[in-house]
Amino acid sequence: MASASFTITELEKLHAFACDLARHAGKYLREDQVRRQKKALETREKLNSVDLVTDADESVEKLIREAVLSQYPDHAFIGEESYSAGEEKRFLLKDGPTWIVDPIDGTVNMVHMFPMTAISIGFCLNSIPTVGVVFAPFLGGHGSLYSAIHHSQGGAWLSEFGPEGPVIPLPIISPPPPLPKDAPKGCLFFGEWGKDRRDSPQSNLTKKSTNFINMATEIGGRGGKGGMVHGVRSLGSSTMDMVYIASGQGDIMFEAGCWEWDVCGGIAILLQTGGIVVDSNPPENIDETSPIPMANLGGRRYLAIRACSEDADGRSPREQQERLVREVWKRTERLNYERPM
Amino acid sequence: MASASFTITELEKLHAFACDLARHAGKYLREDQVRRQKKALETREKLNSVDLVTDADESVEKLIREAVLSQYPDHAFIGEESYSAGEEKRFLLKDGPTWIVDPIDGTVNMVHMFPMTAISIGFCLNSIPTVGVVFAPFLGGHGSLYSAIHHSQGGAWLSEFGPEGPVIPLPIISPPPPLPKDAPKGCLFFGEWGKDRRDSPQSNLTKKSTNFINMATEIGGRGGKGGMVHGVRSLGSSTMDMVYIASGQGDIMFEAGCWEWDVCGGIAILLQTGGIVVDSNPPENIDETSPIPMANLGGRRYLAIRACSEDADGRSPREQQERLVREVWKRTERLNYERPM
Repeated sequence: MASASFTITELEKLHAFACDLARHAGKYLREDQVRRQKKALETREKLNSVDLVTDADESVEKLIREAVLSQYPDHAFIGEESYSAGEEKRFLLKDGPTWIVDPIDGTVNMVHMFPMTAISIGFCLNSIPTVGVVFAPFLGGHGSLYSAIHHSQGGAWLSEFGPEGPVIPLPIISPPPPLPKDAPKGCLFFGEWGKDRRDSPQSNLTKKSTNFINMATEIGGRGGKGGMVHGVRSLGSSTMDMVYIASGQGDIMFEAGCWEWDVCGGIAILLQTGGIVVDSNPPENIDETSPIPMANLGGRRYLAIRACSEDADGRSPREQQERLVREVWKRTERLNYERPM
Repeated sequence: MASASFTITELEKLHAFACDLARHAGKYLREDQVRRQKKALETREKLNSVDLVTDADESVEKLIREAVLSQYPDHAFIGEESYSAGEEKRFLLKDGPTWIVDPIDGTVNMVHMFPMTAISIGFCLNSIPTVGVVFAPFLGGHGSLYSAIHHSQGGAWLSEFGPEGPVIPLPIISPPPPLPKDAPKGCLFFGEWGKDRRDSPQSNLTKKSTNFINMATEIGGRGGKGGMVHGVRSLGSSTMDMVYIASGQGDIMFEAGCWEWDVCGGIAILLQTGGIVVDSNPPENIDETSPIPMANLGGRRYLAIRACSEDADGRSPREQQERLVREVWKRTERLNYERPM
């Protein structure tokens, strides 16, 4: 089908199904961790030693894919592991109902038992992330489940007490405060070092570190690029970075090199709470007043800004967010991530 | 008193008291967060805009200090807020029983509602961290409580289901795996950008970022300093960095600029699980075979390595840990943090 519409009732049912599924997958991962306490994790390496894939990754994707296609046999399914194993590298999102899933984001963290690991389940309609579920099974005893239905009658929620426990609505402060007046000064900035570790002046590692240093440096430093953010955070999970911005637990996520399955679930939550996500490289020919388009979901470059309220000078949320996007663009170098053709 | 000894029973009682106290303080902070959902947090700035102190910081320190001195009136107490407010800046740890407390580590995170915030309660005997309790009240619904009694009959534990819930022993994988054969390659590395944001070639910001880039770069890169770690993580809380190394959820913590109250609780846990902590700047006149002394608790520079087991080549845990310390020293620049006199 070329496009599709779902009623809020249908989306609520789909959201509940996706939450159950994420918790089920999380339970599998917690049990898997217990098994690993007996025996060091056996890994197969892909690309280089940083990019580890575990059997758990493939098992969890299979579990989710089979459940989704059993419940919704006519929906499309894009998953990290099947993408990596396949030959087709183009971004194939069509307008029909499509699930975009990362079985484990933060695999390196999981290998080291660092709890910033998440299962990300996104569901798109008309190419827009519409339902998002991100479950971090090791974050707290019951895990932390962030989810949303992106719809005028939808909502966004955080559940940290298990499936029967209370939920809190997102964003976590409501209404969300305005962005800091001199943002990026005063912002909490999230970015990742990534897997491309080549040492050359134009490498992504070099550019990313330049970006981090610019954002951290005092105002006036780095040739005027100093951003004096409150803090630079690197969690090793772009999925978790995105949900922290989506929930208002951080202000800026600047990330490139990750994929649609890393962020699709988080973007559904971000859109519902009122955040925006754009290309982390400024589009060609954009000037100071052009409206800034939403990021291409398959573009591998994401700059997300949290939701905010009108500020004391009467600037709308969108004005503040677009202003901050331009300020971040001024302080960051274009990264070389493209999609393999 | 010049020195002191406690029985294991006395230490167990003191540990239980400290755990209760940390949870009580955490409950205060969670309630405080709810209040802040109504109203943006009012902060007073100290030093610069990154170093925020909230009323909560002072309230929690007072709560902990009064409870400790009521229960143990002859013990000494060192707390971040009373230090900052006082004139005496020397490190005053004596051999008698001394509590070293950070009411809120990760204040910037707390202001932004990012959950990497912890209450750190350390207890020293003969200048050695002996009981440590680190409670992250926002990490999971019930918070995450890491604690230890550093004693031959002691132990270390993680509690994530509330005071009545189950605990798991630490390190989280037991016995802990050997360090990676080519460490730092393959290690999860934790370090913080800190509050010193000056833009100059010899600034701590410049040196810290150089260190991070070296650790991240491919082997052979950066003039041989490339460490190809699995990941560089920055959480904005040196207390949490330390407990992740202590529990075996990370491998290396390299941090300078923080204080004894940030790490004392975590070090008690680290020592009990079998990790080590040394100066992040190599001591003068140390050669390739000299034993490496433990970090000075008040020295503001900490390099911690997780616990490990004998490796396939028969190298002891201590040999592997000291080898890794030297490999990190080779790849990092000396940082300029001293104690104010």
